[in-house]
Amino acid sequence: MLAKELKAKLQDIVGAENVEDDNASLLAYSYDATARFQAMPDAMVAPRNKTEVAAIVKLCNDHRIPIIARGSGTNLCAGTTPASGGIVLTFKHMNRILEIDEENLTMTVEPGVFTKDIFDTAQEIGLFYPPDPGSMHISQIGGNISENSGGLRGLKYGVTRDYVLGLEVVLPNGEIIRTGGKLAKDVAGYDLTRLFVGSEGTLGVITEAILKLIPQPETKKTMLALYHNLDAAAETVSAIIANRIIPATLEFLDQATVKVVEDFAKIGLPTEAKAVLLIEQDGAPEVVERDAEKIVKLCKENHAFDVQIAKTDEQAEQLMTARRSALSALSRLKPTTILEDATVPRSQIPKMVKAITEIAEKYQVTICTFGHAGDGNLHPTCLTDARNTEEIALVEKAFAEIFEKAVALGGTITGEHGVGMMKLPYLHLKAGEAGIAAMQNIKKALDPNGIMNPGKMLAIAEKEKAGDLQ
Amino acid sequence: MLAKELKAKLQDIVGAENVEDDNASLLAYSYDATARFQAMPDAMVAPRNKTEVAAIVKLCNDHRIPIIARGSGTNLCAGTTPASGGIVLTFKHMNRILEIDEENLTMTVEPGVFTKDIFDTAQEIGLFYPPDPGSMHISQIGGNISENSGGLRGLKYGVTRDYVLGLEVVLPNGEIIRTGGKLAKDVAGYDLTRLFVGSEGTLGVITEAILKLIPQPETKKTMLALYHNLDAAAETVSAIIANRIIPATLEFLDQATVKVVEDFAKIGLPTEAKAVLLIEQDGAPEVVERDAEKIVKLCKENHAFDVQIAKTDEQAEQLMTARRSALSALSRLKPTTILEDATVPRSQIPKMVKAITEIAEKYQVTICTFGHAGDGNLHPTCLTDARNTEEIALVEKAFAEIFEKAVALGGTITGEHGVGMMKLPYLHLKAGEAGIAAMQNIKKALDPNGIMNPGKMLAIAEKEKAGDLQ
Repeated sequence: MLAKELKAKLQDIVGAENVEDDNASLLAYSYDATARFQAMPDAMVAPRNKTEVAAIVKLCNDHRIPIIARGSGTNLCAGTTPASGGIVLTFKHMNRILEIDEENLTMTVEPGVFTKDIFDTAQEIGLFYPPDPGSMHISQIGGNISENSGGLRGLKYGVTRDYVLGLEVVLPNGEIIRTGGKLAKDVAGYDLTRLFVGSEGTLGVITEAILKLIPQPETKKTMLALYHNLDAAAETVSAIIANRIIPATLEFLDQATVKVVEDFAKIGLPTEAKAVLLIEQDGAPEVVERDAEKIVKLCKENHAFDVQIAKTDEQAEQLMTARRSALSALSRLKPTTILEDATVPRSQIPKMVKAITEIAEKYQVTICTFGHAGDGNLHPTCLTDARNTEEIALVEKAFAEIFEKAVALGGTITGEHGVGMMKLPYLHLKAGEAGIAAMQNIKKALDPNGIMNPGKMLAIAEKEKAGDLQ
Repeated sequence: MLAKELKAKLQDIVGAENVEDDNASLLAYSYDATARFQAMPDAMVAPRNKTEVAAIVKLCNDHRIPIIARGSGTNLCAGTTPASGGIVLTFKHMNRILEIDEENLTMTVEPGVFTKDIFDTAQEIGLFYPPDPGSMHISQIGGNISENSGGLRGLKYGVTRDYVLGLEVVLPNGEIIRTGGKLAKDVAGYDLTRLFVGSEGTLGVITEAILKLIPQPETKKTMLALYHNLDAAAETVSAIIANRIIPATLEFLDQATVKVVEDFAKIGLPTEAKAVLLIEQDGAPEVVERDAEKIVKLCKENHAFDVQIAKTDEQAEQLMTARRSALSALSRLKPTTILEDATVPRSQIPKMVKAITEIAEKYQVTICTFGHAGDGNLHPTCLTDARNTEEIALVEKAFAEIFEKAVALGGTITGEHGVGMMKLPYLHLKAGEAGIAAMQNIKKALDPNGIMNPGKMLAIAEKEKAGDLQ
């Protein structure tokens, strides 16, 4: 609980109506979209501008109070659970699109803007903001930047990082800095912009961002290819890339996922297929037409037993929406859904999917797999029950093996979800002890008192390390 | 000079033939492509692999000896002059392309590979490595990464940073870390890859890099638009972007530059034009055709008095080569050429070019301007004589004002050249004192003994700050 004096100071800064510390209110900020992590904050504070953010940060730094900047809490790495209590910052007052600059193709936003509103606002003027994390309808851009969110368009268009040109950040010492700008080129000092992107709120509080927009693709085409086995689907992915085609979306779903999604969305998905590829290409009409023809041909050559092309925009949208609903659909089946994002080089997908299947069998746990085949970012998803401690222990062992396998195949423990508390025990697999030490030194250099989102990403793991679980 | 004992240890590590410390040899490493900066190193050491690099770094860290990793020294920011002596590391033995991975579209290289060889090797198999700094024929990829080099294709394709997927780095403590991988998505910890890109050798020694390749554009078209005044050229740039066309190259040359380049290249450039745009679009044939038509129309609507389309590949290549020769051509005119890279948001180019002209007149110095109009990255180039101390003082004042103006217009002091020693006095204009402090803390965290390229980027400026020169 917050000391009275501190609460009064916070109220002075942001107004009494913007500080909440009753249990009922705080409960809403005690968890995020990640299963099995919960901790109560001491207060929720909603600043109205960067000056207030700076004043809050200074106060917290002086009193060593943790600060957890939080968007909609849609992250899947326990990135915004208040592990050590402290103050949750929300951005309901800092939610404006400040500027759309059509000459420089930028949009300047506050952290509380919903990702979908950025996409829609750009679209209205023929521009395109490509990053599309699954939660984009409700996620906020501040959270997307902090987690470097990915999405379905990563292969062709990259991730959030690739669309952040500049930031305004309140550092842990309360100083406000601006990085980057409306600039395609800027090498004045270290690339702080990209250091803050994906830093999970551990280095400062983002108060403004300049986003890059690009011209909207003129048209698109959506296809569904059905396979009797996974290897054929994977070989199709390789064949498409080998033919120098980079689709906008290249998604993979296994049979279990397709069945669940169809049961949820009821749009006639082919539940008889062992593996499905959902492919979308966008761009100039001639190019899309030609690429689509080539893609269909490559699917068939690689033993797709059926290839369907969406006939209308509605049908295409239905397919994409169905894919986006995979997590929601899967969560209905069991009390606890653990969605992971082990990622490998594209060429290693068949090996990785095979390994996931074998590991699930070994530990007798249910794992469905879908994900972004084009960029190697898979989502093995475990359906389980957090109350069943015996099963959960097996699930943990299974995931530890999955992460080890991903790294052994040249991949990573997390492609787009982040480390948070969820992946803490596994970071050493990817970054190595020397890499973690370097990151910890950077953290200490910028946040010597450790007030920024403590217990996340680089905290000393409280659990045993993954390697010791075997 | 190197102590005997140290020299013997270095010889033990890399072999006697790979340590040089005679004056004649060292002279070659005492300067880079930047005018007016020179300092002698104590030795040149050429390691043969990462283990040797790590051993050298450990030795130097123990003895507090500066290390300057150096490619071909083509940088324009005095980034590789051995300001405090020490050891220059060269990569003549670490110059192999280690792997081309056509499935994952990556190339893995050692730091000593020439940029042009990367481009050519990719091209041979239908792939494309877009970053093309002016010096790419002789520059090495290690240097490109350390400087985050740009080039003519920045607008559409980005810069070196956008094509570095992973690195192997020897940290100042001698530990070897690997960052990133053959992965489009990776959020396992801080983005060390992008922190090292553009860090000018101040945080570690890069020993390997995984580069991203993309499919080669099928075709391209090159155009030249001639104007009676600069504003019309600038308005054309805005009009092209406003029409949602992103050309691969969109270069601007003023009359002075065109005249000098024509005198050098003799290919019939229009020396009567006050301003010239060199525009190239690439991609699928239909798209290039359509874009080119639109671009020609927009040039004419914005008062180009002539628009020429290159009829053959040779003619197109001639135009691009002429543009690339601008620096060489200008350097013939006066003993000293100072090529700067003040960068502004694209929409501010007219204001910036006007300011450059006025500032040059104010101080009575000769400044030609050309550059990457599409991405706002201008190259005001001063033709002067370093021996004329009176004129040089005026040149410095002029450039200080140019940098201030660029920042005031939302731009930066350096778009693609880096800070090095050249821009040290101006970094505070862009990064601010709090930003510089944050960078210095990161530097100290990773390199507490300050052995990595000391005196560069974040060193305390020995000169007066730009603001005090007025």
